[in-house]
Amino acid sequence: MPVFASSRTGPATGPLRPVRVGLDVGGTKVDGVAVGPGQEVLATVRRPTSTGVAGVVATAAAAVADLVADLVADPGPPGPGAVSGVGIGIPGLVDPAAGTVRNAVNLGLGPDPVDLAGLVSTALGGVPVAVENDVNASTLGAYAAFGPGTDLALLSLGTGLAAGIVVGGRLLRGSGGAAGEIGHLALDPRGLPCNCGQRGCLETVAAGSALRRDWPHGDEGRSAEHLFAAAAAGDPAATEVLERWSTGVALAVRTLALTCDPGRIVLAGGVAAVGEPLLRSVSDALRRQARSSVFLRGLALHERLALLPPGRPVAAIGAAAQAPAARAGRG
Amino acid sequence: MPVFASSRTGPATGPLRPVRVGLDVGGTKVDGVAVGPGQEVLATVRRPTSTGVAGVVATAAAAVADLVADLVADPGPPGPGAVSGVGIGIPGLVDPAAGTVRNAVNLGLGPDPVDLAGLVSTALGGVPVAVENDVNASTLGAYAAFGPGTDLALLSLGTGLAAGIVVGGRLLRGSGGAAGEIGHLALDPRGLPCNCGQRGCLETVAAGSALRRDWPHGDEGRSAEHLFAAAAAGDPAATEVLERWSTGVALAVRTLALTCDPGRIVLAGGVAAVGEPLLRSVSDALRRQARSSVFLRGLALHERLALLPPGRPVAAIGAAAQAPAARAGRG
Repeated sequence: MPVFASSRTGPATGPLRPVRVGLDVGGTKVDGVAVGPGQEVLATVRRPTSTGVAGVVATAAAAVADLVADLVADPGPPGPGAVSGVGIGIPGLVDPAAGTVRNAVNLGLGPDPVDLAGLVSTALGGVPVAVENDVNASTLGAYAAFGPGTDLALLSLGTGLAAGIVVGGRLLRGSGGAAGEIGHLALDPRGLPCNCGQRGCLETVAAGSALRRDWPHGDEGRSAEHLFAAAAAGDPAATEVLERWSTGVALAVRTLALTCDPGRIVLAGGVAAVGEPLLRSVSDALRRQARSSVFLRGLALHERLALLPPGRPVAAIGAAAQAPAARAGRG
Repeated sequence: MPVFASSRTGPATGPLRPVRVGLDVGGTKVDGVAVGPGQEVLATVRRPTSTGVAGVVATAAAAVADLVADLVADPGPPGPGAVSGVGIGIPGLVDPAAGTVRNAVNLGLGPDPVDLAGLVSTALGGVPVAVENDVNASTLGAYAAFGPGTDLALLSLGTGLAAGIVVGGRLLRGSGGAAGEIGHLALDPRGLPCNCGQRGCLETVAAGSALRRDWPHGDEGRSAEHLFAAAAAGDPAATEVLERWSTGVALAVRTLALTCDPGRIVLAGGVAAVGEPLLRSVSDALRRQARSSVFLRGLALHERLALLPPGRPVAAIGAAAQAPAARAGRG
C-alpha cells in the first residue's frame, strides 16, 4: 500500500454500486478502505491526519472523497449514492451508540465529547457514520483476516494496553464500556502509579510505554526494535528488560485466556512492528510460566498467539464492518 | 424446600406432559427439579449422594424417579415418555460434548473420564442426558433467576475459585475449556503454591479454602460465618484476615469486570452462605480500591454485586436448562 496516496485494488466495474468505507484515524495518518458487498477491498487510501475537531473531520471527509474519486470515472462530491455508510476507528473514549469521542490526546480532542459521527456525516452530505474504538476496529479486522469460527482477542501493546474480544462472532462490548480494559487491572499495590489513578496496573509493566520507559530509544516501536536487537546481540541489561516486559505481556495473555478463553490471541499495537521476535519472546515467557503447571501446559497458550498480517489495513477494514447500513430514504 | 424429600410445587395437571429434569449433584446431596415447557418448576427433590461411579449414577436415577413419581398419579419407571431430557450439574472436569466427568474428588470420581451421560441415560431407559460443570449450571440458573438481558458472571467461592460467564444470553465456554478459570490466574510469583502447580494463584488468596486456611473453623461455610461474626464483634485478627481475603475477592471481581464487563456479578459457593455481610465486605473492598481512581469509580463495580436468591435450587434449574431436547423417535 502506498504512503499518503490512494490506490484502486479491485477490478474496474461498470455502474457504481454503493460501497462501505472504513477509516482508521491515527495520530499521524488515516488509513481508509472502500469495501464492496462481499467484503472485498475495492480501494485504499492513506492521508496525513490534521488534528483538532475541524482537522479530524476534514481529514476523514477528504479520505472518503479520495476513495470515491478513485472508484468513479467522473469524480464528484461523495454522497449517499456512492457510499452507503462510513465506519471510523479512532483512539480515545468512544461511545459507539452516541457516535462521540473524547480524550483522544494525540488527535487534539479533549474531555468534552465530540459528535464525530454527526460532523463527518454532515460533511459528507448525510452519509450515515458510525464511530468505534480503534482497538475494537482492529479486533474486528483481525477476526475477518483470520477467518470466522474461532473466538479471538487482540492485545494492543502501545502507549496503553487494552484488548478487543470477539466471542461467537460478535464484539464483546460489556455492560460498562470496560470489556477488554485489562491494562487497568491493578495487580501490585506496591507497583508504579498508573495514569488511571491506581498502582501496579498491568499497563505499567506490559504496555509499549512500559518497555520504552525501561529502554528509551524513541517511540514504543523504535524502543522495542532497539531492545529486541540488543537482547538478540546478548546485551544482559536488554535481556533482563525484555524478559521482565515479556513476562508482563504473558500475564495479559493469561488474563484473557482464563476469562474469555479465546482460541486466537493477536499481538498488535506499536510494539508489534517488531514482528516474529515479539511472538517468540512472549511465547517463551508463556512456556516458562507453564513449566510448573500441567494445567497451564494443557492450555497451550503459546500456540494461540499470532501477529496481524503485514501490510493489510486491518483496523480500517474492521471499521468498515461497523459502517451503518444506509437508512430508508437515503442512498 | 424440604431436606431429603420431594415436593410438588406446580399445580396438578391432567395428562402428563414431558418435563425436563435438572440435577445438581454435590458431595453430600443432590438437588433435583422438574421443569415444564415454560421453565416453570413443577417439582423438587433432595437426596443424599452416594459416591463412586455406581453411587452417583444410582443417585441421579433415583432423583429422577422421585420427581416422576411426584408428578404422576400412577408412578412407574421413568422413561422417555415422562422425561424428555435430563441435565446434570456436577463438580470436577466436565466435557459437555462427550458427556463425561473426571477428577470430582468429593464424589469419588478419579482421573479417568466417566461417561456419566451414557450411564444415567441407560439407567433411565434411554432418556437423553447432558452433563455440565456445576459452576456453569449455577451460572445459567442465576441468569434465569435475575432475568435475561444483562450479561452475568457467577463467582464461585468454595474449595476452589472459578467463574461462570453468560454473554449475550449464552454461556461462555471458551476454546480450551478455560473460560472463567480465574482461580488459576497466577499473580504473585512469591505467593503460596497452588494445587495447579503455579504459585500465587487468585485461588490461594480468595477462595473459600484460603479463608478457611487463615481462619480454620470447619468447612468453608462454617469458617466464613465464624470469621464474619468475629470481625463484626471487633476482633482485630479477624478484621485483618477478612480485609485481606475480601481484597482478593475484589480482585477477582475486577478481573471479570475488566475482561467481560458483566453488568451483574453474583457471589456464590460455600462462603456465600454468609449472605449480606459477604456482599458488604466485598463491596467495601471494591470501594477502597476505587478511591484513588476516577476510572474505577466510574465502573461502580460494587453496584453490580448480588447474591443468589435464597432457598431456590438455582444450580438444578440451570442444569435443567441444559437438558437435551428429546430426539426424533423418542418420547
